[in-house]
Amino acid sequence: MKARVHVMLKNGVLDPQGEAVRHALGAMGFDKVDGVRQGKVIDLDLADDATEADVTAMCDKLLANTVIESYSIEMQG
Amino acid sequence: MKARVHVMLKNGVLDPQGEAVRHALGAMGFDKVDGVRQGKVIDLDLADDATEADVTAMCDKLLANTVIESYSIEMQG
Repeated sequence: MKARVHVMLKNGVLDPQGEAVRHALGAMGFDKVDGVRQGKVIDLDLADDATEADVTAMCDKLLANTVIESYSIEMQG
Repeated sequence: MKARVHVMLKNGVLDPQGEAVRHALGAMGFDKVDGVRQGKVIDLDLADDATEADVTAMCDKLLANTVIESYSIEMQG
């Protein structure tokens, strides 16, 4: 089975990467962009008996820094 | 309106970041992980008259390196 994990900086945490993208888009003439936040997406290929609890443990222990990042998990069949 | 863009390395392109995560998960005892691919997620806050075509142009020109990366766009209201 597969799982997709999104890891984003929490609201209120400065996102310099997103700001850089927003600035670059503005400089290229894309003036309809009000804000950009950039994060990570991690696609996991899992054994069939893996559960969402396993993925939550991976996020808490390795994939996300829960002090400044939040994560969401989508299990895909 | 908002748009979410996923940028992933194309299949067949080596993903050292994903490999490092897979290896680290294995070393931590998570043995149900067969493979990991890591990519970027970019959340765009857009003016109300922005269209998916605008976002496609942003991806082609800046957000993705289409030689080695593929992207997908989800428009969110």
